[in-house]
Amino acid sequence: MLNPADEQLAAMLPDGVLRPVTPAYLEEPRGRYHGQAGLIAAPRTTDEVAQIVRACAAARVGIVTRGGGTGLVGGQVMPDGPAPLVLSLERMTALRGIWPEENVLVAEAGMTLQAVRDAAENHGRLFPLSLASQGTAAIGGCLSTNAGGVTALRYGTARALCLGIEAVLPDGSIVNDLKRLRKDNTGYDLRDLLIGAEGSLGVITAASLKLVVPPPNIGTAMLEVPGPEAALTLLALAEGHMAGGVTAFELIGGQGLAFLAETLPEIRQPLPKAHWSVLIEVGLPVGMAPDAALEGLLSDAMERGLVTDGVIAQSGQQAAGFWHLREHIPEANRRIGAISSHDVSLPLSEIAAFILDAGAALAARSDLRVNCFGHLGDGNLHFNLFPAAGRHRAEYDDQRKDLSLLVHEMVVARGGSFSAEHGVGRLKVAELERWGDPARLAAMRAIKSALDPLGIMNPGAVLSQASD
Amino acid sequence: MLNPADEQLAAMLPDGVLRPVTPAYLEEPRGRYHGQAGLIAAPRTTDEVAQIVRACAAARVGIVTRGGGTGLVGGQVMPDGPAPLVLSLERMTALRGIWPEENVLVAEAGMTLQAVRDAAENHGRLFPLSLASQGTAAIGGCLSTNAGGVTALRYGTARALCLGIEAVLPDGSIVNDLKRLRKDNTGYDLRDLLIGAEGSLGVITAASLKLVVPPPNIGTAMLEVPGPEAALTLLALAEGHMAGGVTAFELIGGQGLAFLAETLPEIRQPLPKAHWSVLIEVGLPVGMAPDAALEGLLSDAMERGLVTDGVIAQSGQQAAGFWHLREHIPEANRRIGAISSHDVSLPLSEIAAFILDAGAALAARSDLRVNCFGHLGDGNLHFNLFPAAGRHRAEYDDQRKDLSLLVHEMVVARGGSFSAEHGVGRLKVAELERWGDPARLAAMRAIKSALDPLGIMNPGAVLSQASD
Repeated sequence: MLNPADEQLAAMLPDGVLRPVTPAYLEEPRGRYHGQAGLIAAPRTTDEVAQIVRACAAARVGIVTRGGGTGLVGGQVMPDGPAPLVLSLERMTALRGIWPEENVLVAEAGMTLQAVRDAAENHGRLFPLSLASQGTAAIGGCLSTNAGGVTALRYGTARALCLGIEAVLPDGSIVNDLKRLRKDNTGYDLRDLLIGAEGSLGVITAASLKLVVPPPNIGTAMLEVPGPEAALTLLALAEGHMAGGVTAFELIGGQGLAFLAETLPEIRQPLPKAHWSVLIEVGLPVGMAPDAALEGLLSDAMERGLVTDGVIAQSGQQAAGFWHLREHIPEANRRIGAISSHDVSLPLSEIAAFILDAGAALAARSDLRVNCFGHLGDGNLHFNLFPAAGRHRAEYDDQRKDLSLLVHEMVVARGGSFSAEHGVGRLKVAELERWGDPARLAAMRAIKSALDPLGIMNPGAVLSQASD
Repeated sequence: MLNPADEQLAAMLPDGVLRPVTPAYLEEPRGRYHGQAGLIAAPRTTDEVAQIVRACAAARVGIVTRGGGTGLVGGQVMPDGPAPLVLSLERMTALRGIWPEENVLVAEAGMTLQAVRDAAENHGRLFPLSLASQGTAAIGGCLSTNAGGVTALRYGTARALCLGIEAVLPDGSIVNDLKRLRKDNTGYDLRDLLIGAEGSLGVITAASLKLVVPPPNIGTAMLEVPGPEAALTLLALAEGHMAGGVTAFELIGGQGLAFLAETLPEIRQPLPKAHWSVLIEVGLPVGMAPDAALEGLLSDAMERGLVTDGVIAQSGQQAAGFWHLREHIPEANRRIGAISSHDVSLPLSEIAAFILDAGAALAARSDLRVNCFGHLGDGNLHFNLFPAAGRHRAEYDDQRKDLSLLVHEMVVARGGSFSAEHGVGRLKVAELERWGDPARLAAMRAIKSALDPLGIMNPGAVLSQASD
């Protein structure tokens, strides 16, 4: 039964958009936050989104937009304050059009990333954004959080793959900017402002996305390296060899392999004893055999002491096996149970020293294990803390906050970011206030007030709710 | 001698920043606008920029920021209204740092694009932005206008090459966001908002820029094609062959070659009779001979009827000759004297029909010549109108406005943009008002008011000055 205020709001909404309030709309994958909702609305069209936004503005009810719900920083759930309307994009899943000869596709925001990738593939094209959660993550959410993933090194983050957006602003007006253009210098970049705003400046309802012609030859290898510094030198060498063809360059730590062996022993490990290894993928021109290209790189790298062992995939199946291993590191982590997870980025030349220093500082503070892995080519590490063998994460409850602060402080001191690819959401609002540049924060607040004067769009996400 | 108001402002500025008001500060390359200035200030540091901005805010004096002054839409000159202070970045030319192992460089805004490219090259790296005006254009201006150029197809426009900025906002606060990070999802993208804002939201004072490892092998060819449609099919074929290695793909029309032959006969033309040709450049991995790769593409393309003739550069010198030809098309145009120039972009699949239809519509309206050329891979055409042979541009003065409107209308009708890479400046403010999405324009005005409530930053550029 609805309370009177929600009943009044419900009466203002388009027919047939309301959905029952079920737990699935109020959860997030890490289980840190439990959301609330006065109403759940699932519009079918952009016009319906606009009507809902206008109704919420009139009723002064907050709007939490929800795509696939896979975000890792609590941007999709609002645990505190007056219960919001949850705006689910689950019914806006149309492929509005695809122009393979232009390398462009226009998708509604509720389409899953996998569905976008499949649509491109059906036309001989690749939408290069790739995340472990792509079967569930909605493309609107990928854009709203500027998702990264394993191919950002070559193709950029979600922002770089978006040519234009359609969006509903907090006043209910509809921005029609679904251009299929690679160049359009006509005024302020509202697109990039809404991308990464995590639903706090408006609702992205559709996007014009950039596709690529897939590389004709793909090579994949797992290489054991002496350490992160050697891995970075190897990356520069690989870039010199491959003319920008390095698609992915993932760092894998020995702790991650050990967690995999412990929790998912069925996963085949090509280099089970490596303290540090990298998974490299390259896209190569017609006439260039991937084996030969990777062997050339490997022999050059071994001569320089940058690689100590390695396996070049001899088949697509073997390459898929390497990726299967990489993509299951987060699952192994979940089974072990992290004390604290950190999605950080650093200037590339600071990474090796950071890993060393942070490991030492943490060891001095607590008895724990570190699993460090991630998108090394982007300077993006997932630096996650786990209980010592035989202990449980709950034993670290009282240390969690301090340990997390320690990691973030060491990242920031080296010019790094406390949120590389997951966003701010609700989890890192305090971090942004602490470490964000004050002039930039003031400008963000001014923009938020200008576009959303009533503060109805995802209240409390990214920026704390103004009590001033 | 200064008027009393300017004298008062001058007294508030840091010592030694004033420069004599000379004509060079008031000009723009196309000679359409003649600027004015109460004062010219050339600060040495970001703090001095902030002091100047605060003084202008206190005195309610407009600020026109000037880099190299090469912009083509009058963003750098203010012909009307109360005389502004011209803020020249000519003394802020320091290379603040370079980290070749990170592929990052931090430049002050007054550094020329050529100087940035040279600094990268000195460390074995490439800053890929490339413009005909790079010897004069300042990097701050390149960012403020989101400059494009010949390599945007592979490396993106200026926006895609910037990792972070330092900027002075209209209230004199300094945004310190010179991060050397490829991923940083911590709040709204103020960087991309200031990039492309043409000085109307603040002053970019320095930027952290993305470098690349230069491709080990570069191949260059000029290919005669049956027409623009075949050229686009050829581009898709080339992308399929080269695994994303196509760096540039420039369309050259026969009219452009004729203008070159007439005005710059010393320039060697490899395909002097081609009605349509393309200049293609590819970057290739180690072990891949550029000749062989381009020959493979050429034979494939000829078999499909996409190329009728072609010359593959046999040396760096020959390749440079091809580029010399391409880069002198604008100079030949200047010598002929254009009636009207159009920097437009179109969805790729609309280009061939646009060129045909617009040519026919113009021919029906007037006796003139069209030189169509440009960055075909980006859908970016320079579609310029010239007098019929034996006539002079002045004879077309009364038609100019109508002809320009006709071209822009045909572009917009096909989902294109009336400003692909040059920006809005003062030249295209009316076009933006006419064709810009209303909700987007309203949001732009709200952002402008929020960040620059006094309206002092480049008044009248991008957005008309609010009379409301």
